[in-house]
Amino acid sequence: MTLERVLVVDPIDGEYVADLEVDPPYVVGIKKRGISSFLAIAMPGFVDPHVHGCFGLSVMDGEFSRIEERLYSCGVTGFLATTISSPMDELVGLLEKVKGYRGLSFLGIHLEGPYISKERAGAHPREFVRKPSEEEIEILKKYPEIKLVTFAPEQEGSHLLFDLRGVTLSAGHSNATFSDFLHSGLKRITHFPNALRPLHHREVGAVGAGLLLEDVNLELICDGVHVCGEMVKLIYKMKGAHRIVLATDAIPTTGLKDGRHSFAGVTVLVEEGISRTPEGNLAGGACLFPEVLKKFEKFTGATLRELAAASSYNACRELGLKDMGRIKEGTPADVVILDEDFNVKMTLKNGLIMYKKL
Amino acid sequence: MTLERVLVVDPIDGEYVADLEVDPPYVVGIKKRGISSFLAIAMPGFVDPHVHGCFGLSVMDGEFSRIEERLYSCGVTGFLATTISSPMDELVGLLEKVKGYRGLSFLGIHLEGPYISKERAGAHPREFVRKPSEEEIEILKKYPEIKLVTFAPEQEGSHLLFDLRGVTLSAGHSNATFSDFLHSGLKRITHFPNALRPLHHREVGAVGAGLLLEDVNLELICDGVHVCGEMVKLIYKMKGAHRIVLATDAIPTTGLKDGRHSFAGVTVLVEEGISRTPEGNLAGGACLFPEVLKKFEKFTGATLRELAAASSYNACRELGLKDMGRIKEGTPADVVILDEDFNVKMTLKNGLIMYKKL
Repeated sequence: MTLERVLVVDPIDGEYVADLEVDPPYVVGIKKRGISSFLAIAMPGFVDPHVHGCFGLSVMDGEFSRIEERLYSCGVTGFLATTISSPMDELVGLLEKVKGYRGLSFLGIHLEGPYISKERAGAHPREFVRKPSEEEIEILKKYPEIKLVTFAPEQEGSHLLFDLRGVTLSAGHSNATFSDFLHSGLKRITHFPNALRPLHHREVGAVGAGLLLEDVNLELICDGVHVCGEMVKLIYKMKGAHRIVLATDAIPTTGLKDGRHSFAGVTVLVEEGISRTPEGNLAGGACLFPEVLKKFEKFTGATLRELAAASSYNACRELGLKDMGRIKEGTPADVVILDEDFNVKMTLKNGLIMYKKL
Repeated sequence: MTLERVLVVDPIDGEYVADLEVDPPYVVGIKKRGISSFLAIAMPGFVDPHVHGCFGLSVMDGEFSRIEERLYSCGVTGFLATTISSPMDELVGLLEKVKGYRGLSFLGIHLEGPYISKERAGAHPREFVRKPSEEEIEILKKYPEIKLVTFAPEQEGSHLLFDLRGVTLSAGHSNATFSDFLHSGLKRITHFPNALRPLHHREVGAVGAGLLLEDVNLELICDGVHVCGEMVKLIYKMKGAHRIVLATDAIPTTGLKDGRHSFAGVTVLVEEGISRTPEGNLAGGACLFPEVLKKFEKFTGATLRELAAASSYNACRELGLKDMGRIKEGTPADVVILDEDFNVKMTLKNGLIMYKKL
């Protein structure tokens, strides 16, 4: 298959008009065209490290395959199925289901909690929030499907998480001080700056650390609700797009109509697309990936190349996925075809058309 | 007089070793030496836009001359005598005193309050905090000695302050939202980020505005107490030294020994050099200017040239003092001579030795 006259956007090589030749699973040829007009934008497929569900489907119910399918319509060619704080038997039950699952865009599990701070638990059920124990960590070690863990590094026992192999560690739902964060050695923060100790000018906390420390990646729910446009701009200005990892934090109600819903024992009220707990806490992302990208572009004025980094390449890099997040000869053809307004026209995974807009 | 083999630090021309020839009031010659070793550092005399008093002396008591004298020992060759929120007759009484005063380093009055926010009044007596009225602004117009006014731009009537001529306006003790600040058109914030609405990721307020908007100057009490080192670094990284105006916010108790003191009807408790109200609010700066400079250098690693900008040139520029803040042939010889640890060895004002360390 040849994608003719597309504006190829690669996070490293930049932008150019080309014919993109795809022979599944790879991009096998890129013929540059010496012209500036193009028919569509071809970006590396979006990679979302934070998905609890969408369109009524829940990760906690093990609906991986149907979630994958829906996410292709959003241009997502890689995602981490994300859990919420739950009893150990539920988590193990889910991890056992994952063992038998082989999805193309399913990259593994993101454990969000249960080892988070009760003070910053947000919509996580507090009764399941706890400190890490040796017993539980021993159990989790058996599941290489776990790729990312979000936890509060200031908590007792959090050193145990560093025993997990092949896992990216991320601070989140945390009350860490600047010093706590610095000494944790962590290089990532989940849905920055949500559910963290607020930045204060005498104790800047993990928010200050995320802004200040150059080598720390910041996951950002850029739905215009979790973080306002000015804050997004501030983060972008301070860190640059190469340290920002866009995410949806989509939950089962994301993409659903307004109303009262319930998932994993949590009641969620959706109003104007925004999901909240009955207490009024934000419960998850208000937007799917294309909207997150659009808002990020609008708030920051980032270049296409930067958008490709923030929407795919950076997430791949921090998860150790070396071939992904690029559009380059010889790499897997994970490609999202967009119009000039970043609406998804087509999604390719490993060179196969998984979604095409009618 | 010739200052031999000094490391001249100019905010524009940079650093070089030279013999500095002074004929009061000017620098009349600079002979560059092709060597790197020097006997002392010559920086533009410090300019402090925020001084309520020091060493037991109070601006509100009209002790301008004695304050000037003490400030020379701190390398300060220009300062704004700063008021606190007070009844109109007291302010007028003070302004009348100022009319008859001619001090060399006295640059005028900084009105801090009374037109500030009650919610962010800090150590200002709330009973004197109020909204601007036409009557009061008409009175203030008679005093060209007023050079800087700190007020809360979100307050009703704050537009009246824009009628004052030749005055630099600054937001401070303010509860302004980002939008309030943006629409005020102000280009300066007093003792940033103290006494402002805290930065929140859904309403970044004037703290976010100060960090984000490139053309806004930030006055910074860099005493290590008002703002922690990480926050200072964050501000420096985001804005650059050319937008930072160092200040002491020194009060009569600054420089005094620990104990219970009182000035302008306010009780201040000094503990380990830090002044607080009986309620525990910070009441003013903990350090004199050389310490503020040392801490800024320590927190940020700023270059000498940047230090000269933040300690003198930037303040001069925002006050419209064109010849000041430089070390250059033909400009007034306002010079502070420092050792390599930024201890003041000598202070010249208009080429005259006002202080020399024994």
